[in-house]
Amino acid sequence: MADPWQECMDYAVTLARRAGEVVREAIKNEMNVMIKSSPADLVTATDQKIEKMLISSIKEKYPTHSFIGEESVAAGEKSVLTDSPTWIIDPIDGTTNFVHRFPFVAVSIGFTVNKKMEFGVVYSCLEDKMYTGRKGKGAFCNGQKLQVSQQEDITQSLLVTEFGSSRTPETVRTVLSNLERLLCIPIHGIRGVGTAAINMCLVATGVADAYYEMGIHCWDMAGAGVIVTEAGGVLMDVTGEPFDLMSRRIIAANSKTLAERIVKEIQVVPFQRDDED
Amino acid sequence: MADPWQECMDYAVTLARRAGEVVREAIKNEMNVMIKSSPADLVTATDQKIEKMLISSIKEKYPTHSFIGEESVAAGEKSVLTDSPTWIIDPIDGTTNFVHRFPFVAVSIGFTVNKKMEFGVVYSCLEDKMYTGRKGKGAFCNGQKLQVSQQEDITQSLLVTEFGSSRTPETVRTVLSNLERLLCIPIHGIRGVGTAAINMCLVATGVADAYYEMGIHCWDMAGAGVIVTEAGGVLMDVTGEPFDLMSRRIIAANSKTLAERIVKEIQVVPFQRDDED
Repeated sequence: MADPWQECMDYAVTLARRAGEVVREAIKNEMNVMIKSSPADLVTATDQKIEKMLISSIKEKYPTHSFIGEESVAAGEKSVLTDSPTWIIDPIDGTTNFVHRFPFVAVSIGFTVNKKMEFGVVYSCLEDKMYTGRKGKGAFCNGQKLQVSQQEDITQSLLVTEFGSSRTPETVRTVLSNLERLLCIPIHGIRGVGTAAINMCLVATGVADAYYEMGIHCWDMAGAGVIVTEAGGVLMDVTGEPFDLMSRRIIAANSKTLAERIVKEIQVVPFQRDDED
Repeated sequence: MADPWQECMDYAVTLARRAGEVVREAIKNEMNVMIKSSPADLVTATDQKIEKMLISSIKEKYPTHSFIGEESVAAGEKSVLTDSPTWIIDPIDGTTNFVHRFPFVAVSIGFTVNKKMEFGVVYSCLEDKMYTGRKGKGAFCNGQKLQVSQQEDITQSLLVTEFGSSRTPETVRTVLSNLERLLCIPIHGIRGVGTAAINMCLVATGVADAYYEMGIHCWDMAGAGVIVTEAGGVLMDVTGEPFDLMSRRIIAANSKTLAERIVKEIQVVPFQRDDED
């Protein structure tokens, strides 16, 4: 039997590329920036426009499929994962970067069936890098096969993470104390380009050894998650439990060894789940 | 009178490009990584090879000029700035990135006369971006004129900095508490690509509003410093005093306003000056 979801994936690539063109055009112009959950959680008309464009295009072709989209949820829709074929969309991952024209901005499309990730597409549109991952068939960037790094010694590792958009003093303090413990292991260093999806793709590419973050959403992880696993990496909850797409947190690492080593150092920051009312 | 240093600058661009080729070739191969001042302060044979290549090429053409090079200083040479025409060289800014193939690695060449920065060349060799700045003549990236951002409101700003290579608990703690105070102002966010020179060029390009760091060296700042000022930005010491190239610390911002606002939030981490025995 032919792969039932390959056509959907090809369509996702086409749409992500089209969305990237809109991003590249919009970034040349003045922007009207609005805030959402915190003064550092931004949104623009372009985020909303691209999400509408993506969802309406997909709905036309696959009228029975379900959707979870960052801006639809912000507008009041529920984000509950069902067994239905579901498109999980972040029209602009890295909106703060987009606002500042900092050159890492991604269109992220993940696709689940029976709550399992089937494929992911992350288009880093200012770099023109198209990352894709299809369950059982590998991960690629612009046609080149991706492979995570082999480094399992945390003292020789380079991690990626973000400070996050929460500005609640207690949350910021825990985020920083986690960084302190990791830095002092010691490790080689920590980087962050400002988008979860691209940070995860950097792990898939092998140039970073692991990524972790808390407070992000399913649409930040659904596209890149399968890209990491298909590049040979692992996803894990920050507690060491199995990864849960709706949990608002992730470790995406080159290996179970490195992921478990990170679990030991980080303290959990509580965030309301994506599927909680 | 013709610009007396233009020929030197043209030569610096040629050499930086040649060094970049060596970096791009070396990154394909296995590396033997050594450590310097801390487990996170790395060096490879390529750093040393490129510095030797740069200095011997320049010495041949300008036998009376002086040099301060990262790896020469590591090998025991003095780093004292004199009135002599002086080439200040970082053969690989971002050695940790280089080791991990994280895609931001720069060759940095600064040039001073009478202790004043005359020109700077920063070649981001994996992106193939050549940044240049010549005193009084503007800053450019691949021929395009650079201009810092106009954002003077820190609550709307995106900063760049690094955790640094020190793993001394007290230093790490101060670095993080500075980040905490800045994040909680609040600001839009903080990024760091892992090299001082490229972080500063991101400020010159206007995609980040300011960069600050303590613990870096004159060779990390000498090339990009004049690129920032020629793009309309300012350099300032972290205390608010005038910038001092040998002080191991810098704020490079789009404006005096933003630089002074950062001064208010950061606590100084003491480091021995570059010109101290």
